[in-house]
Amino acid sequence: MQFGKQLPQGVADLYSNDYENKEYIIKQINQLTKLYGFKPIQTPTFEYYDLFMNMPGTLDPDQMIKLIDHDGKILVLRPDATVPIARMVANSNQPLEVEKLSYVTNIFRMQNGESDVFSRSFTQLGVECFGKKNRYVDVEMIALAIETLKTVGLQRYQIDLGQAKFFQALMDEINPTPELQREIQEKLEQKNEFELEQILNENHVNEKAKQVLTQLTYLFGNPREVIKKAKPLALNSDMLQAINELEWIVEQINGLGLSEYISIDLGLVNNLNYYTGVMFQGFVHDFGRSVIQGGRYDSLTEQFGIKVDAIGFGVYLDQLIDVLDQQDISLKNDTAMINVKSQNSIYAFQVANELRRNGYAVNLFDQKASILIDLDEKLISNHKGNRTFDGSDDLLKKVGQFYGEN
Amino acid sequence: MQFGKQLPQGVADLYSNDYENKEYIIKQINQLTKLYGFKPIQTPTFEYYDLFMNMPGTLDPDQMIKLIDHDGKILVLRPDATVPIARMVANSNQPLEVEKLSYVTNIFRMQNGESDVFSRSFTQLGVECFGKKNRYVDVEMIALAIETLKTVGLQRYQIDLGQAKFFQALMDEINPTPELQREIQEKLEQKNEFELEQILNENHVNEKAKQVLTQLTYLFGNPREVIKKAKPLALNSDMLQAINELEWIVEQINGLGLSEYISIDLGLVNNLNYYTGVMFQGFVHDFGRSVIQGGRYDSLTEQFGIKVDAIGFGVYLDQLIDVLDQQDISLKNDTAMINVKSQNSIYAFQVANELRRNGYAVNLFDQKASILIDLDEKLISNHKGNRTFDGSDDLLKKVGQFYGEN
Repeated sequence: MQFGKQLPQGVADLYSNDYENKEYIIKQINQLTKLYGFKPIQTPTFEYYDLFMNMPGTLDPDQMIKLIDHDGKILVLRPDATVPIARMVANSNQPLEVEKLSYVTNIFRMQNGESDVFSRSFTQLGVECFGKKNRYVDVEMIALAIETLKTVGLQRYQIDLGQAKFFQALMDEINPTPELQREIQEKLEQKNEFELEQILNENHVNEKAKQVLTQLTYLFGNPREVIKKAKPLALNSDMLQAINELEWIVEQINGLGLSEYISIDLGLVNNLNYYTGVMFQGFVHDFGRSVIQGGRYDSLTEQFGIKVDAIGFGVYLDQLIDVLDQQDISLKNDTAMINVKSQNSIYAFQVANELRRNGYAVNLFDQKASILIDLDEKLISNHKGNRTFDGSDDLLKKVGQFYGEN
Repeated sequence: MQFGKQLPQGVADLYSNDYENKEYIIKQINQLTKLYGFKPIQTPTFEYYDLFMNMPGTLDPDQMIKLIDHDGKILVLRPDATVPIARMVANSNQPLEVEKLSYVTNIFRMQNGESDVFSRSFTQLGVECFGKKNRYVDVEMIALAIETLKTVGLQRYQIDLGQAKFFQALMDEINPTPELQREIQEKLEQKNEFELEQILNENHVNEKAKQVLTQLTYLFGNPREVIKKAKPLALNSDMLQAINELEWIVEQINGLGLSEYISIDLGLVNNLNYYTGVMFQGFVHDFGRSVIQGGRYDSLTEQFGIKVDAIGFGVYLDQLIDVLDQQDISLKNDTAMINVKSQNSIYAFQVANELRRNGYAVNLFDQKASILIDLDEKLISNHKGNRTFDGSDDLLKKVGQFYGEN
């Protein structure tokens, strides 16, 4: 009997070269976030559906991958990384000091009609900093987002800054229904001024707010210029304060010599509505999708009965790998493989183990390798030629030479 | 509105200390398997149910965690690591050279009534070597299993060797129904001679086979002694050949100086029936469950329309961590954390980055740390006291000294 070899839609096998690239990028970013004081944690693959179902402005419940537990309760495969971590922090019942947590995790979504092999299961890594709001932390997180993309060798990228509070304070002026707000956000995200204006007219939004909203579709680009244009548009003190906060962050980033990497987009109104302050997305030139997304979310833990301010960002790893590939950034060289051969198998095993103890990857038997050692003929060879060796010290020395040539 | 913070049964959060331990063990074992020539790969979290449903002697379908795709097909969360890798190798359509693959993956099972927090989602890592059968590879895989447990610092462990072919050739003598064979295996696993004999009598199993089967419950312990007792029990040439193969493996392991780590258990008849030759399980003294399980499986890929021999083993990581903990084997020291403080935030950021470039983990602001640097007072301090510093070179030097003291 022969079984189907097909895979479900939206998932894929990762062969060793691709997987090694992925591991290498994860390792580089993990090393960086550890230097910034983040500690790795892990939440389970499935959680109760209830955790996400009523969470304001998170995921479309239709996109969650659900399963039924034996007691009839509905479970979902982790559709988001941040909500479970907020639940975990609320569960830990520890005194609420600063908690700097990092993760590497799969995110699962039931998306239809997409051809992308990672559309239904993709890898995200990220950092979350819980603890009393500190505006310097906002600066450090944006700097870390820039450093993350720099660390993996990416070129021509920028971090777009937005400000959730500016938009929320603007919404306070018009008190929209959730449906209207969703439509406004959608048109703003698309920078579709025409349809945005139509919707605002149909819903009789007041003239002042309408003017500011339509202008938002233009408020992106050079930080200082955008802030200068945005200030006069503030309709209330919260809007002005939101812009002032953003201006302060921009000046700090400039002070750190990172001004070339940032841009502002006040039309950045993410569909994950839990953000409450600065928001940011990492974009790469000539690449359509964002590779980083983050922001401040000071209200999320309130859903779990505690109040801890927080800011974090996630890196879309599969997309980062795609764009590194697009930019021809080579990630990692294959290490050379050594093959050891002898009629005396015990001797071959022993020499292989000795080489492994010295850090060399060794295959035995007739497996492929770029450096061959014939213990019976006392010959070491590679594609350039061969040499004899005499004793194990001499062999180790010559392996080092051949390895360097590889 | 407040949400439930509960987690589903059989899964758990991993806080940073536990997760760092887990990461550290994974890293150690991955380094080892790379030196043995294995390449890391990854299969998707969910696969079609069909892949596992009819696979002979694998998992109980009731234990698989199922979900329904939008096209009505049934998917399962990965219930086993080896079957998907065999599918992947069959899919790769490459010339069938030797493929040495390694993985770290979650396995999901819908188990009821267990209190273990990792009973429904646990981590397994392992290696699979595909390619024409080579008896030296069997020896190397057993040696690698021993080396794996040695590498993580485990004590008082042993690898029990079994031989699937010996048992299968014995079954050829009685041609049992699948139901009877399952019952025989169950009683053998339990070493329950009394009930085994009852079942054999009830089913009128011939006297010779009955005698050998009941003896199997005693055939465990010192390899040479067990083999000596087993040889006269061979009822056909396949059984004798199976024992001779096992004897050869034991002599090779002895030749490698690893005899103290192995034992034989001919009653080891695993419930995963895809094994076709040598089988092995890693046990630890005073720990009830196995931490390693593996064996040769030369027929599994036939299910996918190709024929490649293979041998592999998996390490039950959560259980390995439990037993390391039980043996008081400390895994990893926390690295010291440095805190940098200044009224001048840009200066503080710059010094923090300079320290990070030198490999130190640094927190800014009022976050916890064991070494404190006050840039304005030019003071560095830890629990033992403080010293002044003068300039960044001197600071780096003194950080090194304080770090060493930590």
